[in-house]
Parts: sequence; C-alpha cells; structure tokens
Amino acid sequence: MTNSKSQPTAPQPTAHVHLPQGAERGAAPILVEVVRGQMVESRHRASVAITDAEGHVVGSWGDIEQPIYGRSAIKPLLALPLVESGAADGFGLGTAEIALATASHNGEKRHTETVLAWLAKIGLTVDDLECGAHFPYDEPTAQAMWAHGERPNRAHNNCSGKHAGFLTTALHLGEPTRNYIQYEHPVQQRLLGVLEQMSGCELGAVPRGIDGCGIPVIAMPLGNTALAMARLADPGGLPEKRAKAAARILTAMMDDPFMVAGSGRFCTTVMQATGHQAAIKVGAEGVYSGALPGLGLGICVKVEDGTGRASEVVMGQVLKHLGIIDEATEMKLHDVLVPTIRNWAGTPTGQIRPAADCPF
Amino acid sequence: MTNSKSQPTAPQPTAHVHLPQGAERGAAPILVEVVRGQMVESRHRASVAITDAEGHVVGSWGDIEQPIYGRSAIKPLLALPLVESGAADGFGLGTAEIALATASHNGEKRHTETVLAWLAKIGLTVDDLECGAHFPYDEPTAQAMWAHGERPNRAHNNCSGKHAGFLTTALHLGEPTRNYIQYEHPVQQRLLGVLEQMSGCELGAVPRGIDGCGIPVIAMPLGNTALAMARLADPGGLPEKRAKAAARILTAMMDDPFMVAGSGRFCTTVMQATGHQAAIKVGAEGVYSGALPGLGLGICVKVEDGTGRASEVVMGQVLKHLGIIDEATEMKLHDVLVPTIRNWAGTPTGQIRPAADCPF
Repeated sequence: MTNSKSQPTAPQPTAHVHLPQGAERGAAPILVEVVRGQMVESRHRASVAITDAEGHVVGSWGDIEQPIYGRSAIKPLLALPLVESGAADGFGLGTAEIALATASHNGEKRHTETVLAWLAKIGLTVDDLECGAHFPYDEPTAQAMWAHGERPNRAHNNCSGKHAGFLTTALHLGEPTRNYIQYEHPVQQRLLGVLEQMSGCELGAVPRGIDGCGIPVIAMPLGNTALAMARLADPGGLPEKRAKAAARILTAMMDDPFMVAGSGRFCTTVMQATGHQAAIKVGAEGVYSGALPGLGLGICVKVEDGTGRASEVVMGQVLKHLGIIDEATEMKLHDVLVPTIRNWAGTPTGQIRPAADCPF
Repeated sequence: MTNSKSQPTAPQPTAHVHLPQGAERGAAPILVEVVRGQMVESRHRASVAITDAEGHVVGSWGDIEQPIYGRSAIKPLLALPLVESGAADGFGLGTAEIALATASHNGEKRHTETVLAWLAKIGLTVDDLECGAHFPYDEPTAQAMWAHGERPNRAHNNCSGKHAGFLTTALHLGEPTRNYIQYEHPVQQRLLGVLEQMSGCELGAVPRGIDGCGIPVIAMPLGNTALAMARLADPGGLPEKRAKAAARILTAMMDDPFMVAGSGRFCTTVMQATGHQAAIKVGAEGVYSGALPGLGLGICVKVEDGTGRASEVVMGQVLKHLGIIDEATEMKLHDVLVPTIRNWAGTPTGQIRPAADCPF
C-alpha cells in the first residue's frame, strides 16, 4: 500500500511533549487480560499518554512517541472548524448536532433523523455525504431494517455527523462541497492545520492513509495526540475563537453523550456516569482519547493489536487512576469496566479486566 | 472467575516435547502487521509450535510451553471417540457428518440440514443439543433469516456437529445423553483421557473453563497441542483403532472442507487449495491448529491477543514455510493470505500481512 513516490518521514513535534524524568520509550506493557475459567487466555498490550495543555506528561506507559493514526478518537479535534468558523451558528446548529459531529454513532433513530434534518437545514441531502453506507452498529436497529427489507443509506454510517459537519463548514466558507474527503480539498487541508496547531507537530510529510469513511488519516505521536486533547480540555492558551469552540464541543459531548455513540456503548455510558468531568471518544484499531476539563488533562490510548475490547478497559482504568471514576461509579459501571464474557447459553465464562500487574 | 476450592496447577507433560537445541521459552514475537496507507497501524504477537509425532520440535517461535485452551482448534481430537468407539459406523455416518463433527461451521443450509438429518438418524432432535443457539456466522444466511422473521435454533450453532457427535457416542455406548456438556459426564471424561493420551500431559488438575458452546476447555501447553495434532497426522504410534479413526477424521476434513467451516472461510478455502496435504482448524481467541499427513507434522498457533485476523495470517505463513502452500497456490490465495482492508465505500485502505521481520 506504500506510495513509493513520497517517502513519509516520522512526525516531527515542534512543541515537544515534555517527558517526566526517568520516562523511557518502552514496549507497550500488558494492560488487559482476558480470563476464561481458571486461566488468563489472552493478553493485550497498550501504550497510554496523559499530558497537560503545556505538554507536561503526567502519565506515560509504553511508547508515547510512536506515531499513531488517531482515527475516530480525534473527532472532537476535527469538529473545531465547524464551530470556530461560525458555520454551526450560521446554520443554527445546537448541542445535538455538535455532539454528532464528534460521533461514531450507532445509527439509531435519533442519530439518523438528526443527521437528515441537519442536511435539510443546509440545503443538502444524504447523497452529498461521501462516507459510504453501512448497516447501523446498533443490532436491534440493523435487525429491524433487515426484517423490513430496508437497505442502509449514508446517514446510517457511524461517521455521518462528522461528514455533515464538513459539508456545513465548506458551505459556510463558500468552498465546493464535492470531494470534501480528499486530502487536497480545503476542508481536509484546514483540518491538517488544526491538527498541527493542536498537537504541535509538523504533519505535511508524515505517513498518512485513508479512514473507513474515506477521509485522510494522519500519523501523529501518541503523546502529541494526548496534548491536542489536553488543549481542548484546558484551552486557555488557544486563540479566543478556538478556545470557545473547544469548550463548546466538549460540553456538547458531555451534555448529550447518546449522540456521541448510543445505546450500550462505552463512550455514552461512561460520559453519562461521570457527569461533566470527561469527554471520551473511541477510535478504530484500539485508539481511545479523552479530554478532562476539570483536571485540564488529555489522554490517548493505543492498543498495540488494535482491539476495541482492550481500549475500553484501559480507558476505564485510566479514568479510575485519575479519580474521574470514583468507587461509587466503579461499582455502578462494574460490568462496563470489567465486562463479563458469556457463552451462547448465557452462562458467564470469563472476564475482560485490567491486567493483574497493570502499573496504574 | 477462579474456583477457590481447586487450585489448578500448570499442565505437567508426561511425554515431553523435545525442544531443539538453543530453543528458549521467549516472548511471543510480532508475526503480523496491520498496514494502513503508509504506516503499520497495529501489530499482533503469536507463538507457534510445529512438532512431529514423537514430540521433536521442528519449529518454535515464542513460548511453546505456555498453557493454552485449544478451543475449537482441537475439534479434530474431540471427534476421535465418535469414530474409534464404532458409533459413527453404528449409525451409518459418512464423510459429511465426520467433517461436521470437527467443524466451526457457518450455519449455511447444507450444514444445518446435515445436522438435523443426523439427529433424526440417531432418534434425537435439536432440543437434545446443549450448545445454545446463535445466528449463523454466514452473513447472507443470517440476513435472510432476519428478513423472514426466523430465529436461530441450536443446529445453527457453529459447534452443532461436534455436539451431535457427542450425543451419537453417548447413545452408542449406552450413556445418558442429558448433561453431556458437563465436566463429570462420561463423554467429557472420555475426551479428557483422549487429550491426555494424545498430548502426553496429565490434565486432571490443570486450569479449565467453559467454552462458548458449554463444554469444558482444558489447559494444555502449546507444544503438546501441536504434538497431539502431529499424532493425528502420523498415527503409526497409536493403537490401531485410534490410528484408523485419526486418518478417517483428517480425510473427512480434507474431502469435504466446506463442512469444516463454509463459504469464504479460511479453513475451507485453504484446505480446498492444498488438496490432501493439510487439515487445519481455527479456534476462538487466536488459536489455529493443523495436521499435515504427508509431512507427519502437527501445528499449533496462539495469538497473544486472541485475534482471529492474525491467527489466519500466521497459519498461512506457517503453511508457506513448510511448503504446503507453494508459489502457485500463494498467488491464487493472495487475498486470503494477505487480506486487503477496504473502507465502507469499497476503496482498499490497507492490508493484514506477515510482519516485515517475521522469522520464518
């Protein structure tokens, strides 16, 4: 898949993440274990970075200098232009739409109806989305569609809110809406600039690829991805419009967590349970990000093997470590933080849990 | 999940696997990499053992002494009593049923119809299966069921052939059929004996758990699981009845690979392409086994993180290494051995491939 014409180089941070004394670039430790009966059956390794908005690393496990694709975990960053450009206000968008712009949603009725109404509001249709179609993540919704002979449209794509946001921004700024997913399009070039500013990395010549929904993915170091999230959480150092946009995006996510994911999803359940302490966002291939406004911290998790079952358990453990999930919340969320494995007959057969020697 | 009453101890091989000089018990190396665009995005570690029927290790990467649950990858071993007891012949079972007894099948029409006819032949019904029900793995079949408002029954369970085999053996030997999935039932105790004899391990006090279909899973060292598979492939050292049963089981798998898995599945496609050189079988949590009659070798793969996308790529690489997959077959199977990742719009975005520094 390598494009031999361009030789990508590793991302070069211009604003370094400041490693604490003694921190080393190490192999990802085993942070999650999958237990069946009397034995650990599988193990997941992950790297974790926690930084403040100035790049001071307050937590580091594994290799936080490794380049990662942030995938959908950086959608809160990708929503910045929608708000700071004035597009959201120009088209009268509210909390639900801004939360949807950060979402990997379930394709439940409220998600798709809100996307369709939003597209109508900007004078476009589902055919203007360039994300492809897939059946809703929400199984009851998908199964009901099958039962009624319905096919999915692009509004069912988990990224349809992000794409509606891109279209809204392009319209507001008088840019063409066609091909807005292409790397060269003003929408994507603007996002590249946002990621450079927020992460402190030069990203013009770094490895890139294409995401599941068709937009570019850009390699950024794990620690700098956490830094970008920290700057959302503690935006005092950002230009005023961006600072306001950052606060509004995180507030929208925490005000309407259903829109960010949906029924039974980790992002939604944990944000509902932790009030306005954390905005968290899952990404494909084992990425998870978080912005903690009260603490002014950003989090980024990357599971080496790309498994979502592990990234959730790691994020839960990080939020416990930072006191965002207290003992009462932990008890309430037990089956979310330490999921039970059941067999086809419904009998519990195991657990996915923090590793016995998890270092935090 | 630990049962505090019994303190399981590590499996103790009585017939040791003979490690080659210089072989060490090491961490699982990275054998598979998941590429997106210009960068490796995720990595999978795995351990691999290849042995002959006397336990000589002819290939070893990672930790082959680690205890694993063989899961569905050892179904060819679990089918031995069905054949060697005379039950299969007593009830007039043929190649299709014996292949199904080793299967994690797709729940396609030919799979479920054969299971239902088999149950009728032994005077039982789908309600006698104790495996629980789930929608077929085969997506078109599952979606057609949704479209017609059909619910799955236990014959759709991917393990229904194995369970039909257990019931057939119990009936033939005059044992009760109820609770045949329980550890204490004669069916499972007999299987424990078979696994001890084939692996050369004492398994009475080792860690165990419950599989997805309700039967016990028993911890065996990875290398000894490969040894057990090698003894299927080269059964000369086994008692006559067992040797004949071993040959008949492998032949059934290779004669009718569709029954072992189904449309588009790795086991089926690779066995179809490699003729009668290899009987391979996938298991949950990243386990894969193989028995190679021509070479007299057994293979066992365990992916540390339990991911099936990685176990398939490792098994393909092992079969290439051993010459079972030659250059012509490799070209024919390219998209099976090195699967392309596509986004929702169908655009290729990456690959799952052997790691650049895969040591074999």
